[in-house]
Parts: sequence; C-alpha cells; structure tokens
Amino acid sequence: MRLSLGFGIKWDAAVGGGVKPFKASGTLARSFSQAASSPQPFTASFARKQRLSPLSHNFASSRLQPRRPYSSRIMSTEELDKQPPQEVKKYLQQSHDRIFESNKKWAAEQKAKNPDFFSHLNAGQSPEYLWIGCSDSRIPAEAITGLGPGEMFIHRNIANLVCSTDLNVMSVVNYAVRHLHVKHIVVCGHYGCGGVKAAMTPQDLGLLNPWLRNIRDVYRLHEAELDGIKDEEAKYNRLVELNVVEQARNVIKTAAIQQSYAKSGYPIVHGWVFGFKDGLLKDLEIDFEGQLKDIQKIYNLTS
Amino acid sequence: MRLSLGFGIKWDAAVGGGVKPFKASGTLARSFSQAASSPQPFTASFARKQRLSPLSHNFASSRLQPRRPYSSRIMSTEELDKQPPQEVKKYLQQSHDRIFESNKKWAAEQKAKNPDFFSHLNAGQSPEYLWIGCSDSRIPAEAITGLGPGEMFIHRNIANLVCSTDLNVMSVVNYAVRHLHVKHIVVCGHYGCGGVKAAMTPQDLGLLNPWLRNIRDVYRLHEAELDGIKDEEAKYNRLVELNVVEQARNVIKTAAIQQSYAKSGYPIVHGWVFGFKDGLLKDLEIDFEGQLKDIQKIYNLTS
Repeated sequence: MRLSLGFGIKWDAAVGGGVKPFKASGTLARSFSQAASSPQPFTASFARKQRLSPLSHNFASSRLQPRRPYSSRIMSTEELDKQPPQEVKKYLQQSHDRIFESNKKWAAEQKAKNPDFFSHLNAGQSPEYLWIGCSDSRIPAEAITGLGPGEMFIHRNIANLVCSTDLNVMSVVNYAVRHLHVKHIVVCGHYGCGGVKAAMTPQDLGLLNPWLRNIRDVYRLHEAELDGIKDEEAKYNRLVELNVVEQARNVIKTAAIQQSYAKSGYPIVHGWVFGFKDGLLKDLEIDFEGQLKDIQKIYNLTS
Repeated sequence: MRLSLGFGIKWDAAVGGGVKPFKASGTLARSFSQAASSPQPFTASFARKQRLSPLSHNFASSRLQPRRPYSSRIMSTEELDKQPPQEVKKYLQQSHDRIFESNKKWAAEQKAKNPDFFSHLNAGQSPEYLWIGCSDSRIPAEAITGLGPGEMFIHRNIANLVCSTDLNVMSVVNYAVRHLHVKHIVVCGHYGCGGVKAAMTPQDLGLLNPWLRNIRDVYRLHEAELDGIKDEEAKYNRLVELNVVEQARNVIKTAAIQQSYAKSGYPIVHGWVFGFKDGLLKDLEIDFEGQLKDIQKIYNLTS
C-alpha cells in the first residue's frame, strides 16, 4: 500500500453531478480519472492514458544502469512496504552504503584520469552557465549538456519555476549574475513533467497548491492558444513549452539581468525543453533581445 | 572590469573607527579584508587567505575537462569584458551551440550503450533518494554518487538551506516524500562553500541577506562551540557541517517526514559533506532516530 493513501489526499470534484470530497482510493493518476466531469483543460482519459502522476509508475530505474556498481536489487515501494521492519532497515542501510562505494570509485577514477582534478576543483568555480531545471530525477543537467564540474551553477525545483517572491530562486539568479557573472541562463523544462501534469489536475494537493498554481497562471496567460489545441498530448507538450517561456520571462524581469545585459551584453536567457524519448534538448529559440524589449515596456529596472 | 562593481555594492563597515558606506573597489573577497575591524566570527586575514568569494577566482574550468568536445577556449569575464560587442555576441553564440553538440553526442552514446535507454527513461521515475545540495557548479550530484537518470530527485539552492517558509524547498520535500515515496533524504553541503563564506562576511549583500541569514542563525545556535575553535579554517569547516546538521533537522521537522517514518520506517534523513580536495563524501552520521525523538519534543506533527 502506498504511503500517500495514509494521508488521505482529498479533492473537490464533480462526481455524479455533486461535489463530494473523498479519500483518494489510488494514485493521483487514478484519482484524476474519477475527478473531471466538469470542463477541464485536460480530460480524464488523457490522465489515464498518459499516467498523469509519478505515483502511477512502477519503473525499475535500475534498468537504466547496466553497469551499476552495487549488486543489490532495487525494491519497489509496494514490495518494501510488505517487508518486516528489520528487513526495511537492512534495505535502507544497503541503499545508503552503495552511495559511498560509488563515490569512492568515482573519486579514484577522476584522480586516475587527471591527477590534478581535485586541486583544480578546490581552486574555485567560474561557471559560464546558470541552469534552472526541474527536480525530476531523469534529467542529470551536467551529463545531458556535457558540462563538467565548475562549469554550471544549478538550481532545480519542481517544474522549473521562477517566481519573483521566491527568495530561493531569486537568490540563485542574483548570485549567479552579480557575483559569478554567468554568460547564459537556461530555463530547461521537459516533456512529461509531473509538476505540470499535477498542476492541471482538479485536485487539492495541499502544500503543493500554491507552488503549482504558477503553472495554471501560465495556462491562463495562453488560454486561447491552449484551448485551441485539440490533441491532448500536443496541448500538454505546448503547456510545458509555454511554462518554460514564461519562466524565462520571469528571469528577464529581474533587475540583475536587465542591468548586466545593458552593461556587458550578457547573460543571455534561454528556454529549452528536454525530451525523454530521444534525450535531446530542444531550443525554443527565445528571441532574447525581443523579449527583453517587450518586458521592459512594463518591467524596466535599468536606471 | 567586473560587473559587480557597476552595481556599487555597499556595506557598513568600521573603517578607521567610523562607519562609512562606500563602493566596493574590488571583489567581495577584497572588500571583506577592508571591512572587518570590529570583532567578527571570521577575520579579514582568513578572508584574504581563503578567498572568501567566488568573485576572487580566475579558475579555468576547462582544465577539468581534458576531453571537452568543444574546441573553443573559455574566456574569463575580465577578458570578455575587453572585447567589442560583436566579439561578445560571437563568443556567446559559440558557448550556446557547444551545449547542443555535447547533448547530441550524449544522447547517441546512451542509445549505443543501451538501445532501450530512452524508452525506459520515458516510462517514468521512481527515485529512492532526494538530494538537497548546493548550487555550486563543482558538485554534480549524480556523478559523485554514481546514480543514474531516474534514481535521485534533486533540489539545489545556495548553501543547501531548508527553510520552513520557503515554498520552493518545502514543495520538493512534500512531493518527494508523499508522492515519490523516497527512501532517503540527503542534505549535502561542501567544504569551501561560497554561500557559507558570504553569509559570514560583514557586508550588505542586498537580496542575498535574508537567504544567507539562515546560516548566521546556525552560527548563533552553535556559538559557544564555534567561538571555541581558534583555527579559522577548522571553524569554517565546522560551520559547514553544523549547517548541514541544522538543515537536516529542518527536514525532520516537517509533517511529511515524521508521518511517513512513523508509518513505513522511511525516509531516513542524512547529512553529508562533499570535499573538493579528495572528491569524497563525508557522512556526518546523523543519528536519525535520536534527532527525530529530540525534535519531536517540540515539533511533533504526527497525530
């Protein structure tokens, strides 16, 4: 049995014509299929088909790692929850220890390849890139961009959001631009984003509601375009892209970016989307100068 | 000339007995050496010696990448700022394009190693770990832990802070525990943390002040121990460790962790520190059950 059930996620949903709060009887994805009989940007059938929540996956991540250094088998949550407490403890100890084995191996490999690796690492950082990406475990930012240690300052949150009242991301942007002098800021989303999916479910997600509401705000800004897309997967993909564009705009709205660009010609703000199906980054080719000019009509902070 | 100078970072500092706000004439590190004549947790000489800001580095990150796929030279900020605008644009275009070349290469390599790689990736995620680490560009979380795509949900911010009013990190913790059912939550700091250093400088860092204040709060909680350490590098290293311990405690204070652990025996919250000098993770060996019991005296949210 899954943990989330124990917490009794409730949501208001038109079921059989009446609004009834009720307990989730399965995953977010399944609950979604029960919830939406009122008009919604995405329909329930799409939710079922696309598995609109990470909860619906029983994905053996170990298959991605043919050369996994640790021999133990990965247990699914369902399987682990059936074990006695002592077995759970043992499993957790093993999955803790494997990291330290891997880490020692990694450190030795780096040193073998380049004896000066760690003394250079210790000397400092001067990254050219700031990456604002999703927390999703399938997007190792450094690996997919081919960048090594010291090259990219990184912030990752749910659905790669940039909100002006979020001190966390605003501190990252400020530090990266004003103190590290990064040359590029990349907002990178990804197709199949669980955060974007969750945001569009007619479901009360508690603490997550205000965070994910930023995505509904993106929908609202582009309602006509999105409502006009009939194919639901295409609509969802487009929302992922538009979310990236709007978050990139939110970066451009900051004083740090506007002032730095006026003075030095950088950083440039980019919007990219990563695709799981082929592992490729898609450049949304944001016209940075055009966006900046457009944004400064209202948000000019250069003087 | 460095960008930050143009923005005229000011700070109140006892210089020659009087308090004078004045313009930064160099890097944060250098300004720090001018600022601290009043008693401070760290002295100015330590700041100079240890280069207390990333601003003071002219670190050629490319040296870390002997097999860099892109042949162009990395220019320092000083060098780039001397170029005419057209050269700056050209440089930025090149450093943009290199990412897409590297990405194509990475995708092709994954497919060659495992033809099913991307179909598995597309199937979903079920990470066992949540990583809360620093944004510092020198800590590729997946690489140093040996974990692959799909295995670790990731949040990275300046100085790996976990603040209860920060919707960003709180959403990450909530989603990871209640929806992804992670088995381990790792708060990972690192020696030589620019955020921890910056936090302890007697300098007004504007927008960064409230974020970094969390670190001074850690100092305050452990004032007697830290004041008792005479060697300044040892003191700074200890503050890095204590910051990790306190942020791990902040994770344990959440309802999501307390309720999940009571029900299922996971997640376990860990505190680790990464060292640039050897590339190794140090386990601070937080006694999770002991900390939980201690925390629940005041912060119990299980019923």
